[in-house]
Amino acid sequence: MADIPARTELPDTSDISEMKVTTGPLPASRKLYLSGRQHPDIRVPVREIQLEKTSLEPPVRVYDPTGPYTDDSVDIDITRGLATVRAAWIEARGDVERYDGRAVKPEDNSVKPTRKSGTLPFPNVVQRPLRAKSGSKVTQMHYARRGIVTPEMEYVAIRENLGREKAMEASQGGEGFGAQLPGLVTPEFVRDEVARGRAIIPVNINHPEVEPMAIGRNFLVKINANIGNSAVASDVASEVDKMVWAIRWGADTVMDLSTGENIHDTREWILRNSPVPIGTVPIYQALEKVGGVAEDLTWEIFRDTLIEQAEQGVDYFTIHAGVRLAYVPMTAKRVTGIVSRGGSIMAKWCLSHHKESFLYERFAEICEICAAYDVSFSLGDGLRPGSIADANDESQFAELKTLGELTKVAWDQDCQVMIEGPGHVPMNKIKENMDLQLEECHEAPFYTLGPLTTDIAPGYDHITSAIGAAQIGWYGTAMLCYVTPKEHLGLPDRDDVKVGVITYKIAAHAADLAKGHPGAKLRDDALSRARFDFRWRDQFNLSLDPETAMQYHDQTLPAEGAKVAHFCSMCGPKFCSMKITQDVRDYAARLNTDEMTANEQGMAEMSEKFKEEGGEIYLPATEPAE
Amino acid sequence: MADIPARTELPDTSDISEMKVTTGPLPASRKLYLSGRQHPDIRVPVREIQLEKTSLEPPVRVYDPTGPYTDDSVDIDITRGLATVRAAWIEARGDVERYDGRAVKPEDNSVKPTRKSGTLPFPNVVQRPLRAKSGSKVTQMHYARRGIVTPEMEYVAIRENLGREKAMEASQGGEGFGAQLPGLVTPEFVRDEVARGRAIIPVNINHPEVEPMAIGRNFLVKINANIGNSAVASDVASEVDKMVWAIRWGADTVMDLSTGENIHDTREWILRNSPVPIGTVPIYQALEKVGGVAEDLTWEIFRDTLIEQAEQGVDYFTIHAGVRLAYVPMTAKRVTGIVSRGGSIMAKWCLSHHKESFLYERFAEICEICAAYDVSFSLGDGLRPGSIADANDESQFAELKTLGELTKVAWDQDCQVMIEGPGHVPMNKIKENMDLQLEECHEAPFYTLGPLTTDIAPGYDHITSAIGAAQIGWYGTAMLCYVTPKEHLGLPDRDDVKVGVITYKIAAHAADLAKGHPGAKLRDDALSRARFDFRWRDQFNLSLDPETAMQYHDQTLPAEGAKVAHFCSMCGPKFCSMKITQDVRDYAARLNTDEMTANEQGMAEMSEKFKEEGGEIYLPATEPAE
Repeated sequence: MADIPARTELPDTSDISEMKVTTGPLPASRKLYLSGRQHPDIRVPVREIQLEKTSLEPPVRVYDPTGPYTDDSVDIDITRGLATVRAAWIEARGDVERYDGRAVKPEDNSVKPTRKSGTLPFPNVVQRPLRAKSGSKVTQMHYARRGIVTPEMEYVAIRENLGREKAMEASQGGEGFGAQLPGLVTPEFVRDEVARGRAIIPVNINHPEVEPMAIGRNFLVKINANIGNSAVASDVASEVDKMVWAIRWGADTVMDLSTGENIHDTREWILRNSPVPIGTVPIYQALEKVGGVAEDLTWEIFRDTLIEQAEQGVDYFTIHAGVRLAYVPMTAKRVTGIVSRGGSIMAKWCLSHHKESFLYERFAEICEICAAYDVSFSLGDGLRPGSIADANDESQFAELKTLGELTKVAWDQDCQVMIEGPGHVPMNKIKENMDLQLEECHEAPFYTLGPLTTDIAPGYDHITSAIGAAQIGWYGTAMLCYVTPKEHLGLPDRDDVKVGVITYKIAAHAADLAKGHPGAKLRDDALSRARFDFRWRDQFNLSLDPETAMQYHDQTLPAEGAKVAHFCSMCGPKFCSMKITQDVRDYAARLNTDEMTANEQGMAEMSEKFKEEGGEIYLPATEPAE
Repeated sequence: MADIPARTELPDTSDISEMKVTTGPLPASRKLYLSGRQHPDIRVPVREIQLEKTSLEPPVRVYDPTGPYTDDSVDIDITRGLATVRAAWIEARGDVERYDGRAVKPEDNSVKPTRKSGTLPFPNVVQRPLRAKSGSKVTQMHYARRGIVTPEMEYVAIRENLGREKAMEASQGGEGFGAQLPGLVTPEFVRDEVARGRAIIPVNINHPEVEPMAIGRNFLVKINANIGNSAVASDVASEVDKMVWAIRWGADTVMDLSTGENIHDTREWILRNSPVPIGTVPIYQALEKVGGVAEDLTWEIFRDTLIEQAEQGVDYFTIHAGVRLAYVPMTAKRVTGIVSRGGSIMAKWCLSHHKESFLYERFAEICEICAAYDVSFSLGDGLRPGSIADANDESQFAELKTLGELTKVAWDQDCQVMIEGPGHVPMNKIKENMDLQLEECHEAPFYTLGPLTTDIAPGYDHITSAIGAAQIGWYGTAMLCYVTPKEHLGLPDRDDVKVGVITYKIAAHAADLAKGHPGAKLRDDALSRARFDFRWRDQFNLSLDPETAMQYHDQTLPAEGAKVAHFCSMCGPKFCSMKITQDVRDYAARLNTDEMTANEQGMAEMSEKFKEEGGEIYLPATEPAE
């Protein structure tokens, strides 16, 4: 989506021992695993946040995309890669075969004679990849349409169900704009959503390390983080580190947007160590193979790249097949023309050869490849607007219509599809994007970049875009591609990745709340009760970024004592709203509300009564409000 | 609004010479002044951002609340205060008189015997303040209702009109939800909006330093920044510095929420040096005067505090007169009870005495005081929700209805009124707040804190709230009270103030764009053209925070050359979307669009033609798109 790869953080080195990733549980958290009913062997990770004993509240369970890295009982070895949790499920279906995969070519990593230092190949590459047996399809959609509930589907159901039972008690209200959020997510519900194309489970059969997750309008809103090296260079170590760092803070999928050297090896390191689906933009690597000259791209080179990446285990491909020759001139009058890198590559190819895009013409063949490995489509919006001025214009919507047409082609071959969306859009034009996408693309999941709601704040585009992302997520977008503070300016570093992820977790969660997602509100309520009770540590631990929350608090009141103090630095100990509220609560508890409206008689006496009760005495609230 | 005062930055000192504020123009900017037609003597500040010569574009004019601090021709002396731009206008109306003002009492600054060091009184206090002559009212609403267009009104009209003429060319579209944005803002339009109470111009006759601005649904969305010292203490120097710092980045008004010692002196320093309206919450100081014991508050102490602050020149008072005795028990079942400091003070008073709020019962008398100095009301939402769980509940809306009732009372005395709003509200419940406020409060301007759209991200509440602020601003809120990253955790420092202001400028501008404000889009378009042309310096200079934008860019490409390079660090020099778009543009310019759809005949030839034209040659775009 956002064409921003990452900058190297670690020193350029060939010493694998220097590869580091952040591991260990988040504060006050432990990972536990839930098993399935239909598939008892699946182990669905859940993060449980422990609260202070004084709260008398149970731990809060939250969705956990962090993978084994936050599980102390797992020995992490980057050079070995993660355990292959899905291997047995894939084998058990009996519809795949191992074969001699495509041999790695020098140009897979670089067109240059000499390899860049510090990028050793992954030591344990699977020699013989999997593919569908001749005549069979291995996509989740294929199984779903045949009524099969796969382990992946039950896994997703359990994952999405967090807190649902508890939430059933309280009606959530919410405005879903047509979304149909179930009270409880059953494996059958997941199957049905995947079968009708309203949700996807991006799981390449050659990425058995992935912990299945769903992207769909009737599930929790997901977020994607972009990483990847660039021409400016970045080493493998920092990319793997950045991937682990991104999921630690909540990224649900990661896109490897590498555009420089060592693309093949970098991707291998990332895939083998990633518990989340990995997406790519294959045209980027194809372009590198022809020395960056778009006109020299051919279907053969692109096709070979798709197979190369499918064999490695990429879970979804961004394919800009909607950039048709006839649409290109529509962008000429734009303020910022074509800003999608993939879109502009294809536009240039189309103009140079004055031919229709080979991605469009060969799309059925591309589907065949994807169906053989279960690579999901992320149909790219190559003509997305790059400025407020260009939002919702002719070329953008012409492409969207074509993406809907291609969705049908992919579905005919049981391929899973999501649709990429803008970009830069003022608030008043956001909903039209969602409504048109639902209509033109037959409810295939929408996957948007932002959108940015103004162009005047470079350096803060994680915020200009979070405003738009929260809204389009509320309207029905299934996954939000993060934007970092460096958007438009430079390459995000590790800190930018974290800020981008946290910001987008906020947007996605705000959307879940507004949609009335049954379980979404539980975490807000738990944190709000902790806030009211002055359980500072619980506030930190329940927050999206406990470290930052505690650090900000300690800047004013560093003392350990302050973390149990029944006041905060805003009002100080002398006066406190929360404290007074407790007085109100104690008072009202004993008060017959009818008497409130009574006449002046007895008021003095009531007043006395209140004073006797000792308005100043603080009794912490204990019972949850729901 | 947000009850967060500021933390001291400068060393605690009594040496006035150590008082520092940030002065000087913003990058590539110069301040110019526009004069009036009806009132030729008014000088309305405008900030003009110069673009690079290669752009062949005129400078971009933007709204400028920064005051004389960004005017190099003005000699700033904090101990003397700013020039009294409004003095002559006020005198000319002949309806005010000077009188021996209230004498400063020790308790105005502290109940403690010893004064805190480092807080000298302002050296040049006006000894005899102004008030309305007996029988006359001096509010802008009073003049407006009598058909008088004051200099303040024409000042506002010129200020709001930036770029309007140019914008008239292009239709902006937009969804205003009933807002009636004029093509051009005339002084008469301003008068009419003020007369009907749909906009306010907060300008105390004792604050002649203020540069008039309007708060209303049919004007640009404004933002407020909170400063003020606290029990934890902060010195005068840092508060003045923080005020200047806040307006430098775009704050339209500033609230002094001081709650500790030296409240009177701190406010004097701030008022005499502030070109923007200053708001306060008088009950905070009144509470200090009774040693922090809410029950000991009396009407007499409060009334005396109102006069004290009115004489100093406070432009608007937050008065929590809507917290009625009968509403207090409604909050008992809340998750976070009463979170407004002013609201909880009054709740405690009501319960202790079991009497109706004296603010409510004495409201007409309060109006008399405000009418005599033209202090605008910001009717406080003392029962605003402090969590997602408590949003839009019975007590909140009961208070809102009462605020509407009080609005009528104030209007009967020609007092200007705005209404404060929440708080913590999920997206699906935001619009109901706006719709009810318009209905219950007769279109008086709405002034909201956020709202925060989720509770789970302490440390990032500037973002959780900007999401809600942008939306409620779009729906019709006139002013947005900023939230800093320290909300709920601690006291914002200088950096937090800047981040809060920039974040809220983004929310306000996104709202203006969505409402279809005629001039709002000009800056976005100018920056987008600069982005397309790779005019890096113009991108930085047109952004809300040029320093941060350039710093982020330079982290990747520090070289001066990179600032004129026709590529960026995201793709590098080899391949660039923008570059290709230019090829597309050159091509399409020569291409007969009909031919695009022509059959294969002549395509090879066209292809040749394109190559001859040399697709690689980059010709920078020059003409603006509109």
